[in-house]
Order: sequence, then structure tokens, then C-alpha cells
Amino acid sequence: MTHPSAGSPHAFRVQIYYEDTDHSGLVYHANYLKYFERAREHLLGVSELVRLLNDDGIGFVVYKCELTFREGAVFGDSLEIRTTPRRESEFRLVFNQDVYRGDKLLVQGLVQMVCIDRDKKLVRVPESVLARL
Amino acid sequence: MTHPSAGSPHAFRVQIYYEDTDHSGLVYHANYLKYFERAREHLLGVSELVRLLNDDGIGFVVYKCELTFREGAVFGDSLEIRTTPRRESEFRLVFNQDVYRGDKLLVQGLVQMVCIDRDKKLVRVPESVLARL
Amino acid sequence: MTHPSAGSPHAFRVQIYYEDTDHSGLVYHANYLKYFERAREHLLGVSELVRLLNDDGIGFVVYKCELTFREGAVFGDSLEIRTTPRRESEFRLVFNQDVYRGDKLLVQGLVQMVCIDRDKKLVRVPESVLARL
Amino acid sequence: MTHPSAGSPHAFRVQIYYEDTDHSGLVYHANYLKYFERAREHLLGVSELVRLLNDDGIGFVVYKCELTFREGAVFGDSLEIRTTPRRESEFRLVFNQDVYRGDKLLVQGLVQMVCIDRDKKLVRVPESVLARL
Repeated sequence: MTHPSAGSPHAFRVQIYYEDTDHSGLVYHANYLKYFERAREHLLGVSELVRLLNDDGIGFVVYKCELTFREGAVFGDSLEIRTTPRRESEFRLVFNQDVYRGDKLLVQGLVQMVCIDRDKKLVRVPESVLARL
Repeated sequence: MTHPSAGSPHAFRVQIYYEDTDHSGLVYHANYLKYFERAREHLLGVSELVRLLNDDGIGFVVYKCELTFREGAVFGDSLEIRTTPRRESEFRLVFNQDVYRGDKLLVQGLVQMVCIDRDKKLVRVPESVLARL
Repeated sequence: MTHPSAGSPHAFRVQIYYEDTDHSGLVYHANYLKYFERAREHLLGVSELVRLLNDDGIGFVVYKCELTFREGAVFGDSLEIRTTPRRESEFRLVFNQDVYRGDKLLVQGLVQMVCIDRDKKLVRVPESVLARL
Repeated sequence: MTHPSAGSPHAFRVQIYYEDTDHSGLVYHANYLKYFERAREHLLGVSELVRLLNDDGIGFVVYKCELTFREGAVFGDSLEIRTTPRRESEFRLVFNQDVYRGDKLLVQGLVQMVCIDRDKKLVRVPESVLARL
């Protein structure tokens, strides 16, 4: 995986296995939300996310998401998730997340995230996370 | 499950198990798309969907979806998926799908579906399906 | 779902949706472990399992499992999970869990469960659970 | 990932995300079967598996599996799946698949695979696959 710089999106690879597909022969639509989550975690930094959760009790939750499916992926595909994060407010991050197979755009996503504490109360996005964007 | 009549939405129950949750203690966000799919299949008629696929080679695919998460569900919850279908065009169905725990609205969804044939080409929504709406 | 009595196994129904299948056209093998979990939770009592977890900090975990796959299930199938529980020791429950489509046995399973407390230490199976077997 | 040679097992990395865990805080038990499948596909060669399926109509299915869970994995873990394949007969492959976090063995697995053709009939394991073991 590579890190965004000078406006280029963060790129993350996803390999498509049996588990990802359904009997239509295509990737099951809900699974793209999983790939988006994996990509966001690498972008934000897995070890920092673990530390925030264990030490500070702060976790990320999806508030809104939108997906548009243009073409299906199949078993054996190697997809690239291209993620462009944006600080929407003190409380909200927005991620444009698109799925490519080679040059071809398969799925377009938009995911809004917020942070909650141990009591499930909304809290500000931590500075340590903002610094990664 | 009950069928919609006189404007009341189709209601479908989902029980929350270990498999549905993640380490935050809440239902993993992508899983609501699975519950929506289950509800739509019962609304449209599972046996007719199987017949369409096997005999006519026609399947349904999600074209767009939007989700807004207001509150999380937890292990042991019994949720109700309330679905209101609408014929958007000859080629597209739109489903409003909301998740309730008792009176409380947890998640709001909007799902647009289209039909494809064996060659993954767009086809009209079959009459047998429209008759169920 | 029905409760076991006089040696007859506990019966639990599972409907097969798109989410359950993979591109082979059959149910993805790992999913049978999910169906087994759902059946066990109804057999043991969901509300008691929730109470044990929240009040006593006691949860169930799988220690061992074995599966034999004889025939695959497909989209639209309505399966019956037949579960026969057994108290193996003060610390261990064993469940024979078989998957039927009508009269036909599709999958045979054997699942061993133990209980752990909040510190992930092994504890005795609670009396309230044993009373259900 | 690395390839087996001189008796050393094939090693495959799995990163643990939100999607992998359940509300106990640990990885959901059924998911290890997914990690095993991913590892086997890389060991056998994804592109050859795709070719066998598309050109020859030959797919792999799990016939039996056994799992023993010694310790749970958590969010943020990077696991190694160590796989040792064995030709059991002309029709069956057996894979020992163990899950490690560093030096610690978390889960032990044994998976038996067979091959089927388009009519779901048992066929010999293809030579192209045996050559990889």
C-alpha cells in the first residue's frame, strides 16, 4: 500500500477469493464496504487505531455511506481501492473510495466517519489521526 | 413476515447473533446491506426469484445504495426491516429500507436495483416481480 | 424453532440468500458454522446468553469443531439444522449439528464449546444453561 | 507470501480488521476457514485456479475440516497461516493449516479438499495443481 501525497489517493490492494463472491458469479455488493474499511484502516494507521481504542476508548464508526456499482468484480481479480480522505469538520471525516480493476472503475463509494468514546458519545476526531490525512 | 398493503411497509425480522457484531460491540455496518437483501427477497418472493434465475437467466443486482446509521444494534437484538418498494422506471426498482428496534429507528437505507441477464446486460424488470409491489 | 424432548434434536430453520453462496453456486463452506451458532443460541436461549454476558461476564467460545460436507445447498433452499447437545464435563458442551434439506443430510457437524469469563479464563458451564439441555 | 520448499510450510499473512471480530472482542471462529481458503489459493496458484474453473469447469470444494481453537486473535493482529499440503489420493488433498501470531500457535486446522466438475461430479485432482505441492 502507498500513502497519499500531493493529491494522489491512497492505494490499497484487495484480492478476490471464493468468500467474496456470490452465486451470481460476482462479488457480493456488501463486501465492498469491507474493502473500504480495510483501506481506511491502513490509511489511518492500524497501530494508532488500536492504541486509540485500547488507551483512549475512542473508536471510529460509519455515519453515512453511498455506493454506486458500475461493474462487478469476479474470483481471482486483484482490485485497487483508491481512497481520498478529507476533514469535513472537527467531528467528521469524509472518504472518497473508488474500486478499480486496472484502469476500469468498478465501484464508487463515499463514506462519512465519526468518532465515539466508550459511552458511544460523539467526540472530536483525534489529532493523531488528522495528522495522517 | 407480512406483506405491504395500503401503504404500510413490508416487515421482516432479523435476529442479531455473534456473527453480526464486531469488536466495538455493535453490528458491523456492512451487515445491514445483508439484512436489506434478505427482506427484499421475501418481499419479491424467493421462489419466483429462483425461477427467474434458473429458467430465464434473470438476476437482480444493486445499482446504488445509501445508508445512514443513527444508532447501533447489539447481540440479542431482534430488528425489524421495514421496506417500501417503488417502481422507478421499466428498468429500476427503488427500496426504502429502514431498520427498527421496537419504535426506534436505527438505520435508514435506500437501495436501487436493476435486472441483468446471463450476459450481464440490463433488462426490464419482469412483470412477475412488478405484480408483487 | 422447536425444543428437544425425548431424544429428538432441536430443529432450527435457515433460509439461503445471495449472501450465503459463492461463485461455485453453492453455499460457502464456512457459513455452516454461522448456522450452527444461530441454532445453538436459540437452543440455549438468546435472552439468557445476553444476561450471562452482561451480568456475569460469561461468554461461550468454540473450542473444537469438525465438519463433513456431503452435498451443497443453493440459493433459495430452506435448511433445517438439527442439534443434539450433550454435557461432556463441567467445562464442556458438545453439540452434534446436522444440516438437512428435506430428508437429505447435507452437512454433519460436531462443535465443542467452553465458557470463559471477562479475563478469558475457563469457567464452568453455568447451571442456567445446563438446565436447558 | 512464500512458497514451501524442503518441508517448510507455505506462509501467508492475514491482517485482522473490524470485519473479522465479533462482540467478544475476538476473531469470529468461522472466519479462520476463510483465512485457510485464502492461503490455499495462493499456495495452489490463483491464476491456475481461475483457468481450471473457466476452461475446464473444475473447482475445489472442502470435503472435511477440523479446527482447534487455542487462543483468540484480536483487531490489529497480523497472523501467519502456515500451510502444509499433502496428496492423500488421486482424488483428495489434505492441508494442515495452523494460525500463528508471532511464535504463538492460535488455531490448528486440517482441511480435506476434492475436485468437482460442472455437474458436481468428483474428478481427479489436476496434474497442474499436484505439480505445485
